[in-house]
Amino acid sequence: MTVLRFLTAGESHGPTLTGIIEGMPAGLELAEEYINRELARRQQGYGRGGRMAIETDQVRILSGVRWGKTLGSPITLQIANRDWENWQVEMAIGLPDEEVDVDLVSRPRPGHGDLAGMLKYRTRDARNILERASARETAMRVAIGAVARRLLEHFGMEIISHVIQIGEIRAQRFPKDAKEIRAQAEASPLRCSDPEAARLMANEIDAARAQGDSLGGIFEVIVLHVPAGLGSHVHWDRRLDGRIAQGVMSIPAIKAVEIGLGKDCAVLPGSKVHDEIYYDASHGGRSSFLWRGKRWCTSGGFSRKTNRAGGIEAGMTNGAPLVVRAAMKPIPTLYRPLMSVDVLELEPSFAGIERSDICAVPAAAVVGEAVTAWTLAEACLEKFPGDSLLEMATAYQEHLESLVP
Amino acid sequence: MTVLRFLTAGESHGPTLTGIIEGMPAGLELAEEYINRELARRQQGYGRGGRMAIETDQVRILSGVRWGKTLGSPITLQIANRDWENWQVEMAIGLPDEEVDVDLVSRPRPGHGDLAGMLKYRTRDARNILERASARETAMRVAIGAVARRLLEHFGMEIISHVIQIGEIRAQRFPKDAKEIRAQAEASPLRCSDPEAARLMANEIDAARAQGDSLGGIFEVIVLHVPAGLGSHVHWDRRLDGRIAQGVMSIPAIKAVEIGLGKDCAVLPGSKVHDEIYYDASHGGRSSFLWRGKRWCTSGGFSRKTNRAGGIEAGMTNGAPLVVRAAMKPIPTLYRPLMSVDVLELEPSFAGIERSDICAVPAAAVVGEAVTAWTLAEACLEKFPGDSLLEMATAYQEHLESLVP
Amino acid sequence: MTVLRFLTAGESHGPTLTGIIEGMPAGLELAEEYINRELARRQQGYGRGGRMAIETDQVRILSGVRWGKTLGSPITLQIANRDWENWQVEMAIGLPDEEVDVDLVSRPRPGHGDLAGMLKYRTRDARNILERASARETAMRVAIGAVARRLLEHFGMEIISHVIQIGEIRAQRFPKDAKEIRAQAEASPLRCSDPEAARLMANEIDAARAQGDSLGGIFEVIVLHVPAGLGSHVHWDRRLDGRIAQGVMSIPAIKAVEIGLGKDCAVLPGSKVHDEIYYDASHGGRSSFLWRGKRWCTSGGFSRKTNRAGGIEAGMTNGAPLVVRAAMKPIPTLYRPLMSVDVLELEPSFAGIERSDICAVPAAAVVGEAVTAWTLAEACLEKFPGDSLLEMATAYQEHLESLVP
Amino acid sequence: MTVLRFLTAGESHGPTLTGIIEGMPAGLELAEEYINRELARRQQGYGRGGRMAIETDQVRILSGVRWGKTLGSPITLQIANRDWENWQVEMAIGLPDEEVDVDLVSRPRPGHGDLAGMLKYRTRDARNILERASARETAMRVAIGAVARRLLEHFGMEIISHVIQIGEIRAQRFPKDAKEIRAQAEASPLRCSDPEAARLMANEIDAARAQGDSLGGIFEVIVLHVPAGLGSHVHWDRRLDGRIAQGVMSIPAIKAVEIGLGKDCAVLPGSKVHDEIYYDASHGGRSSFLWRGKRWCTSGGFSRKTNRAGGIEAGMTNGAPLVVRAAMKPIPTLYRPLMSVDVLELEPSFAGIERSDICAVPAAAVVGEAVTAWTLAEACLEKFPGDSLLEMATAYQEHLESLVP
Repeated sequence: MTVLRFLTAGESHGPTLTGIIEGMPAGLELAEEYINRELARRQQGYGRGGRMAIETDQVRILSGVRWGKTLGSPITLQIANRDWENWQVEMAIGLPDEEVDVDLVSRPRPGHGDLAGMLKYRTRDARNILERASARETAMRVAIGAVARRLLEHFGMEIISHVIQIGEIRAQRFPKDAKEIRAQAEASPLRCSDPEAARLMANEIDAARAQGDSLGGIFEVIVLHVPAGLGSHVHWDRRLDGRIAQGVMSIPAIKAVEIGLGKDCAVLPGSKVHDEIYYDASHGGRSSFLWRGKRWCTSGGFSRKTNRAGGIEAGMTNGAPLVVRAAMKPIPTLYRPLMSVDVLELEPSFAGIERSDICAVPAAAVVGEAVTAWTLAEACLEKFPGDSLLEMATAYQEHLESLVP
Repeated sequence: MTVLRFLTAGESHGPTLTGIIEGMPAGLELAEEYINRELARRQQGYGRGGRMAIETDQVRILSGVRWGKTLGSPITLQIANRDWENWQVEMAIGLPDEEVDVDLVSRPRPGHGDLAGMLKYRTRDARNILERASARETAMRVAIGAVARRLLEHFGMEIISHVIQIGEIRAQRFPKDAKEIRAQAEASPLRCSDPEAARLMANEIDAARAQGDSLGGIFEVIVLHVPAGLGSHVHWDRRLDGRIAQGVMSIPAIKAVEIGLGKDCAVLPGSKVHDEIYYDASHGGRSSFLWRGKRWCTSGGFSRKTNRAGGIEAGMTNGAPLVVRAAMKPIPTLYRPLMSVDVLELEPSFAGIERSDICAVPAAAVVGEAVTAWTLAEACLEKFPGDSLLEMATAYQEHLESLVP
Repeated sequence: MTVLRFLTAGESHGPTLTGIIEGMPAGLELAEEYINRELARRQQGYGRGGRMAIETDQVRILSGVRWGKTLGSPITLQIANRDWENWQVEMAIGLPDEEVDVDLVSRPRPGHGDLAGMLKYRTRDARNILERASARETAMRVAIGAVARRLLEHFGMEIISHVIQIGEIRAQRFPKDAKEIRAQAEASPLRCSDPEAARLMANEIDAARAQGDSLGGIFEVIVLHVPAGLGSHVHWDRRLDGRIAQGVMSIPAIKAVEIGLGKDCAVLPGSKVHDEIYYDASHGGRSSFLWRGKRWCTSGGFSRKTNRAGGIEAGMTNGAPLVVRAAMKPIPTLYRPLMSVDVLELEPSFAGIERSDICAVPAAAVVGEAVTAWTLAEACLEKFPGDSLLEMATAYQEHLESLVP
Repeated sequence: MTVLRFLTAGESHGPTLTGIIEGMPAGLELAEEYINRELARRQQGYGRGGRMAIETDQVRILSGVRWGKTLGSPITLQIANRDWENWQVEMAIGLPDEEVDVDLVSRPRPGHGDLAGMLKYRTRDARNILERASARETAMRVAIGAVARRLLEHFGMEIISHVIQIGEIRAQRFPKDAKEIRAQAEASPLRCSDPEAARLMANEIDAARAQGDSLGGIFEVIVLHVPAGLGSHVHWDRRLDGRIAQGVMSIPAIKAVEIGLGKDCAVLPGSKVHDEIYYDASHGGRSSFLWRGKRWCTSGGFSRKTNRAGGIEAGMTNGAPLVVRAAMKPIPTLYRPLMSVDVLELEPSFAGIERSDICAVPAAAVVGEAVTAWTLAEACLEKFPGDSLLEMATAYQEHLESLVP
């Protein structure tokens, strides 16, 4: 019996996206407005195409919440597709009443799942694949992640993301305080906390648009006030780093995931990679720290001066901020299309075009927050009992107190 | 009901490591010698410490195989600890008969799970954590991966790994043919297919040893002849890239995972990242290709000239070789130890020392092969029926034929 | 990775019931009308209360199906609550705009989950429990089971149910042919294939209603043309009998589950319990048999003259019809209520009353069909590959042929 | 991530049975002797055959326990087969060095999985099936259940079983106090708490042996001091009754499972089936009750005078004793064998004979205790936090206190 689980459903141009969450404790305050704020954050960002205008996503909670609080029963989330009326024939659930003329999508787009999906599911119509493979599905993952985030907030955790690279432009000067990173990122259409880099990134995106090309980049997710002791070393699939990596790598277009120093670990010697341990009795049970270069406490006085591990040692949180980075490939739909093959004619052809963005890294960062929140919520529910928020809070507090030696 | 699953157990200095695999089809030829070869590959590598000499790991198959073939029932694998007699008191299962004097391990080592585990499991003896958090557990994961590999081989897949970076030394000149990469890597104590780089890597390790320091690096796993259509885009946790990322990130000391171009995707424009699609009717249903820069076929004539995606689009294999890279941090146990705290005294102290290696990247590459093999075997058993190898082979062949348009 | 899974959600008086199915193959014909027919079957039956009139359940398919066929992506099913407008304040998702007066349900009903749920989830309002514990949830399980049934039908399986006991009245004379059982049961408001017993059952229900009491009973589910080889003996949780038992026992109010002879096995000696094995080469690969007392073939000529095992030996189907029985307790809400305690006053009180039925055994039989269909669909997808109906059908056919020695 | 899980492995005549448990909390006292006592209880019982003499099962703990306490890491249990030396050729793991002559088992035994398994796994040698389908596997399930039982005992739960029917003999007079039932059952070779019935049962078994026949029966498992609030109504697969039914029905030869009144629910009206609720402030937080006919408290003063529900309402424990019954079919191997077919010759033949018992109901009762214990341990670990026994005990105590209104 998995403690916490969800399923999502919905085609990009179908009537709705739907998600069901099973396993959330009773008594958590949850409002549609809260989820809608997260959905809105995902829809922002420099470099988006036309669809974002159509889709001011609004969630409806259809079960599991009463009078503003969760009941402990499954939570249904649903986002209607505001463009559905234009797709009712092409994406009809039932057989159409009379003969209608709908073109097959027969020119698979490189970089998308079109061809692999057609071969796997044995269809010559890529629409049968691309509707579900679309990044539109991440709207529901953000909604689901918002519920997880609501839980984590209750225990004082804060989830932040910022974009640190778009194409060749890399942010160089980050604020020292993580909350300042958040403030800057939230104010930036690039979700970048380095304003000068953000300006150059926007130029880069404009240039790509002009050339019918697209861009990827790198984002970072930071979670503050994560308690020590989530995840575990005892079995490979309990390791939190692996589970975070699965979540983040499964976001469409992500091709690399890093925790803490990430790839830079490969270059540095051990003496410059591991975070030495200190003790200071004046610190209480609660983790308290600033960000880069400032001393922080894992708990009850055990502290570090560095966080190269990104908050995870041996698959467990160590009380330091969780730091995850992901590299996103450029959007695969190019307005100056790549070469492909028409699977009906078996002749060379330009790839098809579905309405698309030029760059979606700022949005992907918000999705990254959501999937990280979910994984942490799972880990919390594995460590603390989850029938009611009251029990969870009691056990959480007891755990924090136990950290003081 | 999960199609394929396993559990591993065993402390580093306990009597045995044990693993049980449930869900392998009946009729697969499997011998202890085959698994032992993989175990031996893991034990090699420049930079290992003293323990490797003790542990010439030998597996025993204790169930699930009869007369050289799997039965379809759970397979038990067991590796005895040849050093157990020296640890029978310290690691006794039962209470000792009389008072014995065993020191607590009270100085947690930065970079290991010692401190996080002590806080999580509420113990002041880090031995209760480190025995299971030890990379010794990866011996069993290699044994289990060997069984998966045996299955994949039956369908023509080949799994290769090589080391491409140790500390600051990065391999530059790779052989063009993947099989040549394998040949060179297998012959190299650094598991590196660039002999000049290998020589420099050995020097780097010698220097680190001299300084009481340790080194990490990067390895790459390549799987040839992967059929198109494993994994899926339809739900986030069916995406094969995410599942591979979980497996690889959960190997101890891994801090980054990349597929295909990986982080380089972030820098390049879409026009240089996606793999254009071609068609050539002269190719049959079987994928056939060379390695970098050579044309290869996903299946039945659909081909690509590049493999920047690393063989996965939208969470599905596309018929190209699977390419996964991982960055490993340096071994956390340093012979010139880092600062820590004695949790009994709450006073500063050097971290404790457990017998350790200087660099384990070549071994980690073999573990990387094993976990990748396992994930692919899972995906195969989700796509093809798994009661008997006979049924699986029939369906596999039928799938290959279906790929021809 | 579980091959096939679903989640359901929805409170009894909330806006909707929702279900998501993940893992169905692509290419299966599926229409809302098909599911609605099953929903209608659940709503029939002598002894139902007022709610059945309100709820002519209609499902909407919101994803996973296009132009009448499944896509392989998750399938969303949704049933709107036609009575929702009357419950919008009492069951409001958000906080009400102004002070409204809603009574707590503070008198837990014996036999329901009211008290256990209040203690578990720490609420004094039984509505927070009973809305989800309500048998209303079984409407969605029937909808989900209908999708499974659609799959099974494609492979020739037929699922039948009939009521064999209501209170003290037990059906005695069953038709010999299973299809005749079905015909009679479908025509009977008691879902009973013995018309004389049905008449007495109706009287029994009338008498219970007159006394403010309620009745339970026993139903039987029969599945014809189940292929040999579903489920497995190799691990306890692969055994199909156990999985069927879980599904059926988890239907609200079920207190006993039997397979084949069931409890009668305890009385008879082995010589009268086990089904002897015969061989007749004239039978083809397809199982072909009549019902009780007639010779039937498991496959390819192996046949039995009896089916005391109910189609399962060692957790595997043996090719005989699957026979499952369940005993349902009487509806716990009594119009002449039982003693309880008001949890606010801590004083004795009659149990509260929610609108309810007198007897729901005929409906429960339809739910029993649905959960059995689901379990069989899972087992099929574990044995046969599930990306597309085409692959599944090919493997299924190959399996049937393999049964001929 | 499942909270608690296990795998078992091992053929009946292979070298060992092995089990791995993953997810047990740290700090639980666990000794081999404790498990061996449970193994010995399974080996007793009137009606067993010759094998029981060979197999004085002894478990070895090979991981997860240090100095008498669990570590939180996976626990390996292993039982060596004392008869292995006689089976080393017939059940050889590897290919034999030279040609040896081993007969195929080609005459499948009705009632066993022989034929279904041969058809499923495509083998003509029933040994490849029967070695794993053998009830020998239940020795490992008892060992694993013993670990779960150890956990439950820590929270005051007591697990009792007794045999209430063998063939046509049904126990009539049970002791009123459950602990007296246990005392009588433990002292009886029939595990029957009614000495007169036990005497008749032994006669029944003697008669069956004389005729080359076999017998089944019914056993009951009772768990005392189960806290209210385990399991849940919120999703079908969280319902504890369903999960118990799966566990018990998956014991070899079980054909019916009942909870509380079981099938008798079908006959009685609601007014005689549901357990009325009372309140008595003089009762504390701890459940305290006697057995049949005596008043008992679910918790904190809420009490019942009856326990027809068997301790479960809406899939949740209600604080009353858990009562589960199962019907076991007669052993399928008959010394006066049934008719079968030789699958090599395709000619009628008597079924083969493997060494077997006449009646194994007393042993099955012990297995029933073990699987029930496991399911309850899962439910406890879902409700209470499971890293360490200390945290679990704290949350458990807090839960008990919360039950007092």
